[in-house]
Amino acid sequence: MANVEAKARKILIAVDEGEESLYALSWALSNVISENSKDTIILLYAKPPRVVYSSLDGTGYMFSSDIIASMEKYGHDVADCVMEKAKRLCKDLHDVKVETKVENGDARDVICEVAEKLGVDILVMGTHGYGLIKRAFLGSVSNHCAQKVKCPVLIVKRPKSVA
Amino acid sequence: MANVEAKARKILIAVDEGEESLYALSWALSNVISENSKDTIILLYAKPPRVVYSSLDGTGYMFSSDIIASMEKYGHDVADCVMEKAKRLCKDLHDVKVETKVENGDARDVICEVAEKLGVDILVMGTHGYGLIKRAFLGSVSNHCAQKVKCPVLIVKRPKSVA
Repeated sequence: MANVEAKARKILIAVDEGEESLYALSWALSNVISENSKDTIILLYAKPPRVVYSSLDGTGYMFSSDIIASMEKYGHDVADCVMEKAKRLCKDLHDVKVETKVENGDARDVICEVAEKLGVDILVMGTHGYGLIKRAFLGSVSNHCAQKVKCPVLIVKRPKSVA
Repeated sequence: MANVEAKARKILIAVDEGEESLYALSWALSNVISENSKDTIILLYAKPPRVVYSSLDGTGYMFSSDIIASMEKYGHDVADCVMEKAKRLCKDLHDVKVETKVENGDARDVICEVAEKLGVDILVMGTHGYGLIKRAFLGSVSNHCAQKVKCPVLIVKRPKSVA
């Protein structure tokens, strides 16, 4: 790339449990990130806040603390699993630093806040971002972030043929 | 970039009369496009359809054909001027092919249609896309395209400090 060799960029990549975000990561690795650059990749996973679990229950019945604890545990396991998969995709990078970040909160807020706070050079994301629970909002996370963050945003969709 | 040397990509870059789209082009040249790659850049300008000029007149008075002709001429001149500026930014590319395309129509439709028809690998755009006339719809073109096109979309905003 023309002027990039000298400049170390911070590249924020939002990952979630959907295959689409890992596809977005792979695409960015092949198309935007030079394996010999001094870039830093920050893999970000937003863990849904507890209120999402509670709101799953439409009966008005409150979950017992045991159930909440095991859901929290499940949330941790999912985060670990997603990060492991994502890091595996990055294993062939030489000089590129790979960092991971798990934050609690609504993906839309978390992604925008981290992008802002770290002053990243580019945000990469799939069109999902909420995982399975909020598929009804398909695409709304990337739309929201594309409007709100100040840095360039790369939105990568998984082609149908790969699905 | 990892696997890019061998693969020639088609990169569609939507340009308009706003400085922001030229900033998006520059950013893509520095960050996504290798100057020695076999990539093809397609610079696309969407010329607003005639109905946009007519609707400028809120009095119900129809423009005379002279005025419409000179507005058409103005439209051509703007297209030429934008393309010249854009091509100048691309002048240092060695093996990269640069093509230009001017299409009549609503930017949202034109960009999506061309992306689809040419089967491009990535669409690059600023957050504008309508030029001055439709600033009220600021951002809507990129949102629309990001939702509709199947390829990865890179949305580049012009940082405030450059403005």
